[in-house]
Amino acid sequence: MLKKMAFIVGSKSFEKMMMPLIISQTADAMDVEVDIFFTFWGLQLLKKGAADKAKVEGMPFPMKGMAAWMFKKKLKKFGTDNPSEVIKELASNGNIHLYACNMTMELMGVKKEDLIPEVEKVLGAAKFLEICEDADQVLVFA
Amino acid sequence: MLKKMAFIVGSKSFEKMMMPLIISQTADAMDVEVDIFFTFWGLQLLKKGAADKAKVEGMPFPMKGMAAWMFKKKLKKFGTDNPSEVIKELASNGNIHLYACNMTMELMGVKKEDLIPEVEKVLGAAKFLEICEDADQVLVFA
Amino acid sequence: MLKKMAFIVGSKSFEKMMMPLIISQTADAMDVEVDIFFTFWGLQLLKKGAADKAKVEGMPFPMKGMAAWMFKKKLKKFGTDNPSEVIKELASNGNIHLYACNMTMELMGVKKEDLIPEVEKVLGAAKFLEICEDADQVLVFA
Repeated sequence: MLKKMAFIVGSKSFEKMMMPLIISQTADAMDVEVDIFFTFWGLQLLKKGAADKAKVEGMPFPMKGMAAWMFKKKLKKFGTDNPSEVIKELASNGNIHLYACNMTMELMGVKKEDLIPEVEKVLGAAKFLEICEDADQVLVFA
Repeated sequence: MLKKMAFIVGSKSFEKMMMPLIISQTADAMDVEVDIFFTFWGLQLLKKGAADKAKVEGMPFPMKGMAAWMFKKKLKKFGTDNPSEVIKELASNGNIHLYACNMTMELMGVKKEDLIPEVEKVLGAAKFLEICEDADQVLVFA
Repeated sequence: MLKKMAFIVGSKSFEKMMMPLIISQTADAMDVEVDIFFTFWGLQLLKKGAADKAKVEGMPFPMKGMAAWMFKKKLKKFGTDNPSEVIKELASNGNIHLYACNMTMELMGVKKEDLIPEVEKVLGAAKFLEICEDADQVLVFA
């Protein structure tokens, strides 16, 4: 039985955020633990107010925001139209753990107080490798 | 011995499609099973006629199509110049299984009849997590 | 205990190169072996002089180079400001192994002598699948 997964989120695009979030919702319902490590651009998603502003990647400029808006509208029926609320719910249930990459924080000048309170810990790569050790599968969304 | 892999394809770019397809060809020859789950933009590749029109990512507009065309020409000697034929062959051999994400189909208004007949099943995230459970490795191409 | 990981690098962007390199530095320090397979655009990073010129992805043109330069400046304190030196050091320590994809070399007209001497071997997908077999986790940066 699947017990534990780990995800790396390394992009700030709407789709690279929603894929792991939606898988996490399902994992949570199946009582599978998920450790999500936000690094590089992915860290931006953990800043206050950022997740709901994420834009779709690989589209011409005016489309990026519109496509994200359209997706969010359609996601409503799955109970996931507001990424920040999904994050809040997942973090409060106990199975899903959000981690911020400490090196990226330094690189990008992001402080602990800039991050949403759902971030459980600020971690380095060594700690993340220990997480990988325990995980049945590690997926990268970068 | 490697028995089973699972891939997530979450992008519709030529390279994110060809990487898993080429690995699948090799896996098939080594009798390794591969479950490929097409989600988000990746689902677009399963629409009739779409795989052969996939464009290379991260290049200025006129280059995208040209680069894909050039790659396909060179891929001919590997027997993979036509992605749709690769998909057809892989699906018919019995080791490689193509799945479409049901949530994405709803989000993007894609119907079962829009998809190529090689799609074995339409699945949700819960079913995909069960697939991950059995897989020796899960790779994300997103 | 984590013994062996395998990475696929399929993009030539600065961040898709730095994520696996930084994880590899940590893995190396923890005595974890890492096999890194460079394929498609990722192969470009193994060409002489290329790693230090890698640009940040998903930004408007003039920003791409600037952002990479800024990151490298900040990475200095982590001892990683020069990607080519990181690669050199990792390859010489014995735990981290760099492989070039032979099919990509043919597709892109890249010759063995175009590659940096740190490349340990030129491999095909079949050999890479054998590597996946032994790896505790396989991560894709594409």
